Amino acid sequence: MFIEIITIGDELLIGQVVDTNSAWMGKELNKVGFEVIRVTSVRDREDEIIEAVDTAMKRVDIVLMTGGLGPTKDDITKYTLCKYFGTELVFSEMVYKNIERILANRISMNPLNKSQALVPKDYCTVINNRVGTASISWFEKNEKVLVSMPGVPQEMKTNMTDEIIPRLLSRFNVETIFHKTYLIKNHPESVLAIALTDWENQLPESVKLAYLPKAGIVRLRLTGRGLDEAAIKERVLKEGAKLYDILGEDVLDENDSPLEEIIGKILRGQGLTVATAESCTGGNIAARITSIPGSSLYFKGSVVAYANEVKKELLHVSENSLIKFGAVSEEVVKEMAFGAMDSLKTDCAVAVSGIAGPDGGTIDKPVGTIWIAAAYGKKVLTLKQEVDFGRELNVERASNNALLLLQKILK
Amino acid sequence: MFIEIITIGDELLIGQVVDTNSAWMGKELNKVGFEVIRVTSVRDREDEIIEAVDTAMKRVDIVLMTGGLGPTKDDITKYTLCKYFGTELVFSEMVYKNIERILANRISMNPLNKSQALVPKDYCTVINNRVGTASISWFEKNEKVLVSMPGVPQEMKTNMTDEIIPRLLSRFNVETIFHKTYLIKNHPESVLAIALTDWENQLPESVKLAYLPKAGIVRLRLTGRGLDEAAIKERVLKEGAKLYDILGEDVLDENDSPLEEIIGKILRGQGLTVATAESCTGGNIAARITSIPGSSLYFKGSVVAYANEVKKELLHVSENSLIKFGAVSEEVVKEMAFGAMDSLKTDCAVAVSGIAGPDGGTIDKPVGTIWIAAAYGKKVLTLKQEVDFGRELNVERASNNALLLLQKILK
Repeated sequence: MFIEIITIGDELLIGQVVDTNSAWMGKELNKVGFEVIRVTSVRDREDEIIEAVDTAMKRVDIVLMTGGLGPTKDDITKYTLCKYFGTELVFSEMVYKNIERILANRISMNPLNKSQALVPKDYCTVINNRVGTASISWFEKNEKVLVSMPGVPQEMKTNMTDEIIPRLLSRFNVETIFHKTYLIKNHPESVLAIALTDWENQLPESVKLAYLPKAGIVRLRLTGRGLDEAAIKERVLKEGAKLYDILGEDVLDENDSPLEEIIGKILRGQGLTVATAESCTGGNIAARITSIPGSSLYFKGSVVAYANEVKKELLHVSENSLIKFGAVSEEVVKEMAFGAMDSLKTDCAVAVSGIAGPDGGTIDKPVGTIWIAAAYGKKVLTLKQEVDFGRELNVERASNNALLLLQKILK
Repeated sequence: MFIEIITIGDELLIGQVVDTNSAWMGKELNKVGFEVIRVTSVRDREDEIIEAVDTAMKRVDIVLMTGGLGPTKDDITKYTLCKYFGTELVFSEMVYKNIERILANRISMNPLNKSQALVPKDYCTVINNRVGTASISWFEKNEKVLVSMPGVPQEMKTNMTDEIIPRLLSRFNVETIFHKTYLIKNHPESVLAIALTDWENQLPESVKLAYLPKAGIVRLRLTGRGLDEAAIKERVLKEGAKLYDILGEDVLDENDSPLEEIIGKILRGQGLTVATAESCTGGNIAARITSIPGSSLYFKGSVVAYANEVKKELLHVSENSLIKFGAVSEEVVKEMAFGAMDSLKTDCAVAVSGIAGPDGGTIDKPVGTIWIAAAYGKKVLTLKQEVDFGRELNVERASNNALLLLQKILK
């Protein structure tokens, strides 16, 4: 069952806000068998919204929209949809009560909030938004469904999960889609594709393959589609299993989990604790590890040591090593890793020190030079990252490499 | 001058990858006077790509595309565009040499990489990609321009900046767009809108206003458009200046800078150093501060103290306070902030301790309860954050509030 998404707001087009809603919606809808085939982002203009809605409604039976429902003047989605469906706005006591409840203990009701209690009169089921003041409009006309939701990601997510997806499932019959994503390390995309040529050529028609490379890791996604759920699943898993014969331990995971979740499982499973010692990654690895609920079971903390004095004081890096080898060196990251284990009393640790850029490079150590260490007990592994991909990506690759090195040493 | 963007790839539609390209492109294009009026994301399907390209080419004179240019089978953009323009692929020696150069010292040339040297024969200027193996195709037919670029963000960004934007500017005459974005603190969106009603009503037709609320901060964007650059700029700045009369110090910034950049400027300007002590934010504040190039001038480091022992050992939080008040308390965040200043020898510090969720809440301290402190010299300010918006947003709001509190204490 095909769906199109329309996200509305000038801020998306001028790049002030990245549209993360459609990706999240695509993922959740896919899990239950709906397939998003197009996402369109348009400005807060009546004619452009109507044109986008109209062409989408002609192509598919379900259109989901986010954005343009705020209390302020620039938000026109609700009025525009009334025009499109040929109806008008009327006051809703139910929505008004919900707005009162949401605003309680925060701010007092004002005319703008009150205007959010206006809802479309015909063709529309109004759904109360339990986490925000903008209500959801579920339009239905000529067997087609259009749902307009708030653009605030948290509000959209709550309402999609609690209201919209369950209602879509009871309203439409869906084909099964089954995805399985394998995380592959140590293989640049084209090298991987060569290694997998024979396997790829023997894949059945009903199983699609996609390569998704990012910051040193390639995700391989297998997708099966059809009506017989069990058969599709079996087919995809059978093909996926063959990857282990070809790639062995370079298949890191098959649950499309982020690296930090994979590491978290390993640490929990082995009952180990971890710390990070970060210079150029600046707390990114710690932030990723702690993005996983329950990480307090294995993560004790981190020392972000931007200044050399912090490396010395809190991580016991020797003055001598800093002078002799420099802060960006194999010797210093080793000492940082062991220093973190010692200071934070953990079983293992990762450490990173490098030149993220854009400035600070030298001839010996150009921008992009990053040393990484993972220590466990008395063992230590190190890695030198060398190419400059820009500050942000350098940091992301270093974080990935640090987590991969930790995974390797724990094996 | 209007532009449409088309981003291609199944991974965007099933939500495995968030399309960050179009936001970046929209922002950069806007700066030089182009206006992105629509973004469409479609799957790797020939008919859907052709339909999206065709309708976009009918609406505007410039279409920019990213994605689908990888060496693997699932990438079909180049072949599809040849079909659309009625041409074919031919081998390019120039592109082949560039691929050889890119792959040198990394992997050896293989048939898949070699196939990337095939380029469209007619209607097309081929532009070498100096940071990747996929070349850029600049099509021109019937006075319309279509540019197909790789989807890897770093490659797209480099080529947009170095090649595409300069070529667009020399090919087209553009109207001026002038944006100014004011960061407002302490005002929920609807409260702000009420406070600004009179001002909003007196805005001239040529100046548009948008509200962009996020995690406790509202960005107000004023946009002027026209041919007389100086007049537009003056008009927007004149209206923006009035905001200071209405909102005073709650206007935090007018350069659309992220909070961490604003704080960075203040610290640099005053010659001060800072540290963070983070429990539930897990390194996020440090990661944000260090995302700013040159932050090593004022940021010395951070202690991420997830475990109470780390709070005691590295931040000198007293055992007594932890027992008496608990880790999530005003007393403990104060001690954490002063402990960080002491341990990392800085002039000021921020500290955060709270329950990010989804678990760990109690009746006294439900999920979402987060204490924040900012210390400078002997002074300290604290703040209690209370509503639960989900783990990710709780952390983001706490990071924002910590940076705002730091800004306040430094004033």
